[in-house]
Order: sequence, then C-alpha cells, then structure tokens
Amino acid sequence: MTDISPQTAAGKVLLHFAMSLDGFVAGPGHSMDFLSRATNRPGLVQEYVETTGAILAGRAGFDSAIGDSRPYGGAWQGPIFVLTHHPEDAMPTPDITFLSCPVQEAVGIALEAAGGKNVEVFSPTIGRQLLQLGLVDELDLHVVPVLLGDGIRLYDAPGGEPVHLRRDDAEPTRTVSLRYRPDGGAPDCAGG
Amino acid sequence: MTDISPQTAAGKVLLHFAMSLDGFVAGPGHSMDFLSRATNRPGLVQEYVETTGAILAGRAGFDSAIGDSRPYGGAWQGPIFVLTHHPEDAMPTPDITFLSCPVQEAVGIALEAAGGKNVEVFSPTIGRQLLQLGLVDELDLHVVPVLLGDGIRLYDAPGGEPVHLRRDDAEPTRTVSLRYRPDGGAPDCAGG
Repeated sequence: MTDISPQTAAGKVLLHFAMSLDGFVAGPGHSMDFLSRATNRPGLVQEYVETTGAILAGRAGFDSAIGDSRPYGGAWQGPIFVLTHHPEDAMPTPDITFLSCPVQEAVGIALEAAGGKNVEVFSPTIGRQLLQLGLVDELDLHVVPVLLGDGIRLYDAPGGEPVHLRRDDAEPTRTVSLRYRPDGGAPDCAGG
Repeated sequence: MTDISPQTAAGKVLLHFAMSLDGFVAGPGHSMDFLSRATNRPGLVQEYVETTGAILAGRAGFDSAIGDSRPYGGAWQGPIFVLTHHPEDAMPTPDITFLSCPVQEAVGIALEAAGGKNVEVFSPTIGRQLLQLGLVDELDLHVVPVLLGDGIRLYDAPGGEPVHLRRDDAEPTRTVSLRYRPDGGAPDCAGG
C-alpha cells in the first residue's frame, strides 16, 4: 500500500495524531503505550518536524505528556501553546505558553507564531471545537495496528452531527480498505 | 493509494465492516446513514458476495437492519445466523436461523454452513467476544470519510486489554497514514 504524499508547510491547521484502528488517540489515562509495537515509514517524523511551526495542546495532554517530554522526541523545537481554563495552577515551564482564551483566538495566536509553517493541534478536545467551527484544514492520522477498546477518542461528540470529510486524494469520497489479522492468529480449529 | 488484495474464500472468520474514521460501525440507534456519501472501489461488493458462505449477526443488528433488508443489498444469498439470548421473541424470518448458544459454538455452526467459504461476523459485540477467544482470522474494514462522534463502536471494551493486530501486508506493524479535509473546507481566515 502506498502512502499519502509528504506533508507541506503552508500555514495550515492540522489535527495530527497516531490513532488506534478503533479511533483512540490515547489509551485510558492518556497512556501512549499503544504506540510501542508500531513502526512508521522511514522519514515520517522528520517530515512533520520540518513542516510544523507551532503546536497547540490541551491541558490534559500537557499534564500527562508534554510536561515530561517534548513533541517528536525533542527533534522539533518551536513554540508550544497550552490552552487551559486554569493557567494559574499549571506547572510553569520555560518553553511553553499557557493561553486562556477561546479556541479560535488560540489557533490565531499559534498560526501567527508558526510563521507560515503549520499549526499542529495535539488535543482532540480542541480539535473537536475547531472542527465544529470550521477551522481545521487537514486531519493527518497514522493508524496503529491495535484495538484499544477504551481511552481518549479522536472525536468524542455524543449527540452531535457527523463531520463529513474528503480524502486528500483523487477520489475524495472513496472508502479506504484496511485488512488486519490478530497478532498471534486464531487457533487452528476455529470451528471447534 | 492502492488498496488491499482481493478477498479469498478460505473458510475464514472475518469481521467485515464499513467504519467511520473515528471507529464507529453504525451511528446512534444502529443508523447506517453515514454510508450515504461514501463510494467503494469498483467490484468491492461483488468480491465479498463471492467469498462469503455464511453470515453471523447479532440480535441488535437483526432487529434494526437485517430484519428489513439483506446483506449486500440482496446480491448475496446464503445462510444467516442470528445469535440471541431470546430467540422466542425474535420475529420469525424464513431464511434466518436463530441460535442461542456460546459464540464459539455459533461460529462453528456458521463455518460448517459456509462450506469452505468465509463466515462474516456483522456484530461488533460477537466480534469482540471472538477476538478475545482468538477465533477471528481477519478484520476487513472500509474506512468511510466521516467522523460520527457517537454510535456503535467497532471494539468496545472498557478496561480490557489491547488487541494487537498485524497488517496483512509486507510490513505488518507499520502504521497506515490517512489524510482528510473537512468537507466544505475551513474558512479563508482561520487565524481570525
């Protein structure tokens, strides 16, 4: 299976996530353990390191992940904005700017700081709000071969309206077929 | 993007679903409206019509969908088994066999009836149990370009262990990258 075209730096707002096949971008408690067995095509990380100008994160993600580590394993350097209702109790961190404003204003600040490169939104909660406001240019997802069954969903909107998408491809409404086998396989005599 | 190889008839147990990008195989109330804008690659339906020997469905799906319609728009003919704890209150339907037995027994009955072709499992609830029992050979998913945010999940297992998968491909642990844009696009001045 060929892959999508390389990402380009163009002042876009991206939702960029690794996602389990069943739609989770983190496990319970924001765990990222589900990434441990997966590999990416060569050069993938470098591509996003080069095209990303700023990152907009949420408070939950910051408290659980960004606080301890940096995006792309530290290979990316740049402005990180964390949107929070309560900046006063966030752990002060030298290279991180806490924002307490509407999401549309936060994404504007991040775009300005990105200087023509892309803004990556690392929070599905912020992503949902931006999708509903029509402020997302692209969703870039890397589907990890695992079913989690529980965790932080890419798009959690009970009772909401569907968000229709188009593939960035010659055939925008066509389904993408994926085939997996359980790792370890099924017993020889499934029919019992 | 090239697609997966054609399905083959080989006495396999398949979980075969159209799925929203965010992991739902039906909307709230088992609605299948999310399929309305999607297209499949040419020949997709015929491929599964030819390789499927029996279908194993759940009661919820039967009551909401199979009761009124037939798999693959009626293009497929063959034995349909509906697993239910309460066969006594199911609407009797000439070409459908109600089973009330453990899932492993039901899948054995369906495999026997499939006569060497594949059994398709149309219920995510039965699918989850079969995955946990190691009785699933393959997952074939057709990812529809839509975010639902709510509905019937492919794999709903709060508190459960992750199910690790392998892609049916030369690089089984590699992520699959997908790129979408919201249909209608973002406003011109996303930065506000």
